[in-house]
Amino acid sequence: MAVGQGMDSVLLPVQGVSSGVACAGIKQTGRRDLVVFELSPGSTVGAVFTKNAFCAAPVTVAKQHLASDKPIRFLVINTGNANAGTGQQGIDDAIETCNRLAAMRSLEPEQVLPFSTGVIGEYLPMHAIVNGLPQALSSLMTDNWLEAAQGILTTDTRVKGASRQFEFEGETITVTGIAKGSGMIKPNMATMLAFVATDAKVSDALVQQIAAEASEQSFNRITVDSDTSTNDACLVMATGQSNTPVIDSVEQPFYGYLLKTVKEVMLSLAQQIIRDGEGATKFIEVAVAGANNTDEALKVAYSVAESPLFKTAMSASDANWGRILMAVGKADVESLNVEQIDVYLGDVQIVSQGQRADSYTEEQGSAVVAEEEIQVRIELNRGSASESVWTSDLSYEYVRINAEYRS
Amino acid sequence: MAVGQGMDSVLLPVQGVSSGVACAGIKQTGRRDLVVFELSPGSTVGAVFTKNAFCAAPVTVAKQHLASDKPIRFLVINTGNANAGTGQQGIDDAIETCNRLAAMRSLEPEQVLPFSTGVIGEYLPMHAIVNGLPQALSSLMTDNWLEAAQGILTTDTRVKGASRQFEFEGETITVTGIAKGSGMIKPNMATMLAFVATDAKVSDALVQQIAAEASEQSFNRITVDSDTSTNDACLVMATGQSNTPVIDSVEQPFYGYLLKTVKEVMLSLAQQIIRDGEGATKFIEVAVAGANNTDEALKVAYSVAESPLFKTAMSASDANWGRILMAVGKADVESLNVEQIDVYLGDVQIVSQGQRADSYTEEQGSAVVAEEEIQVRIELNRGSASESVWTSDLSYEYVRINAEYRS
Repeated sequence: MAVGQGMDSVLLPVQGVSSGVACAGIKQTGRRDLVVFELSPGSTVGAVFTKNAFCAAPVTVAKQHLASDKPIRFLVINTGNANAGTGQQGIDDAIETCNRLAAMRSLEPEQVLPFSTGVIGEYLPMHAIVNGLPQALSSLMTDNWLEAAQGILTTDTRVKGASRQFEFEGETITVTGIAKGSGMIKPNMATMLAFVATDAKVSDALVQQIAAEASEQSFNRITVDSDTSTNDACLVMATGQSNTPVIDSVEQPFYGYLLKTVKEVMLSLAQQIIRDGEGATKFIEVAVAGANNTDEALKVAYSVAESPLFKTAMSASDANWGRILMAVGKADVESLNVEQIDVYLGDVQIVSQGQRADSYTEEQGSAVVAEEEIQVRIELNRGSASESVWTSDLSYEYVRINAEYRS
Repeated sequence: MAVGQGMDSVLLPVQGVSSGVACAGIKQTGRRDLVVFELSPGSTVGAVFTKNAFCAAPVTVAKQHLASDKPIRFLVINTGNANAGTGQQGIDDAIETCNRLAAMRSLEPEQVLPFSTGVIGEYLPMHAIVNGLPQALSSLMTDNWLEAAQGILTTDTRVKGASRQFEFEGETITVTGIAKGSGMIKPNMATMLAFVATDAKVSDALVQQIAAEASEQSFNRITVDSDTSTNDACLVMATGQSNTPVIDSVEQPFYGYLLKTVKEVMLSLAQQIIRDGEGATKFIEVAVAGANNTDEALKVAYSVAESPLFKTAMSASDANWGRILMAVGKADVESLNVEQIDVYLGDVQIVSQGQRADSYTEEQGSAVVAEEEIQVRIELNRGSASESVWTSDLSYEYVRINAEYRS
């Protein structure tokens, strides 16, 4: 099950980025499970990682390698095993993976970043990974994003990718990204795994800022099940292969264009994750307006988007607006005056000043929630801040997928 | 579906409390849907209510009547309709309900407290309520707790009640309570509806303190689906019909005995609610020890108890302990050192110092989660605070019940 439109039909190559894929046997099924990315010399990398205190071994090692300030030249990503909850052995395995790849390309281990996704609590099958690396390296190609996007999937039913281009002073800049994620999705700083690349030239400091800002307003605005993965990571890679000036100040107009485009790519990826949320039959935007500040708007939006009762009602195409009021009311917003609140389902006003709108009929609400794509709009009417978050419904299928995940 | 033992086999009468039940036709099905409680003159009442900002009309009116300081003599409770999200009309209806009952008994309206539970967002069928009141009043009896417990149910599949007695200076004190609740259960100050009575003599101030303290450590320690009802209310009624001294100071030993007994009754009711949680096939205790403080222990406990991924794994009897680590890690506890954490399933240690315990085998874990009653114990090893919360699993049945609630 997945809702609405899928990925962009074309994933444009980014000069300076190539990727290779192997079936290394980490998954039992013979699927693609090992991906490497190679970045051209001079590339800069920004990254955001999960805030889950139980972060996985590759997250710890990737952070250390980024902190070493040695230029990043390779990423290595395995699926089928998260290498999380694996203690020192897990750290050693993540480092060894980098060591092996670095040795094959005469690089230092710190120039390689490791990523893992899959089952938590089992040791990485190092034999499979080491054997798979030459196959992945031998298939390195620039025009290979679709293969890479397939190679990082776990329970996903769809490949997730997005590309955008913009012109700056006669030069075409490309931004392409891929992501994976379907459950355990309430990213806190980044979704499970996302890799976004551009051929713009960006300083180290600013590529990090772009990664942080763009992910905050895309991956940090979605939730499938309110659970935050141990392995979340989002990377922005800038190869500098285009003929554009280096971005090293937020004052440069070019910075603004690039940030906007990276955000667009990330928001597309984030929404693709929700459309492919585990068991998803609905794609739901919860838009909150009239809040005093961003924090307040997000509290209300997430309280609705994470309410199991709201999500099961949506799954059943039931315009049970009482559950929306309940979820708004429990959102822990200080001195919320419910008599100021209006609620809309699509264009239909269901609640006016805290109670059923006089004009509302059940038929109107039912027509809106019968659709695959549903917008819930909540007007708090007490300030000027607004935020949207995106979520899927809670269906039988979500329970089935997660009950059977390891069986 | 419901898990393990049900209510206490006998609900002991409490001198000074009688109740009556009617089939008023608020529900379409001809079930009991209107309950009245009568309290003897001199009774004191303590109450805690939902903190949901969208509190229902009867909650607003009950608070006003309690604040009037007129002695409470009657409660009137309807099911089938929550009278929430109903604006001024809802307030008027709740007041009118009290007016009608007060007139029949020559009391002032403020001496009646109204309660409602059921569907949100529809106006109260006043005609049915007004017609049902005489029938409910005519059936008032002291030994009628079981009928009353049936009369307050909605989606519950089981009646919920508990009784305890203790001796004080040769006098037997009785505490009996009933509750309802099955979904929309993460009470914030009280569960959906609970009514607990004792024949002890308690001052107004202390009966309120008992209501607050006992509910905090019982109803505020359970969650089915993390959703907080608009109608939550928990009442403690003390009729003073026993021959014991008035409790008017927390220093009195009698106060301690009574508080302990009320807590026991409430904890039994709270756990009965979880055992009858919507779609429940498991009764799960999440016990957190070694926390720096209560707040920290509860954050971790609720993060696990509310994780959809943990709850679906339990539903499938899958000892997927990685999801427990994930949920502990996302709990937003400051500077949590995961390398200090031990986790047990029942008596089986699954995680030692943040990683899989050497002694652990999947068979051991599977044996524990195959049971209907499961304890997860998390040792943070950084302080001396400990707390438990109770929850049910997330099953197909939960989704079915809530998808079909209004259809």
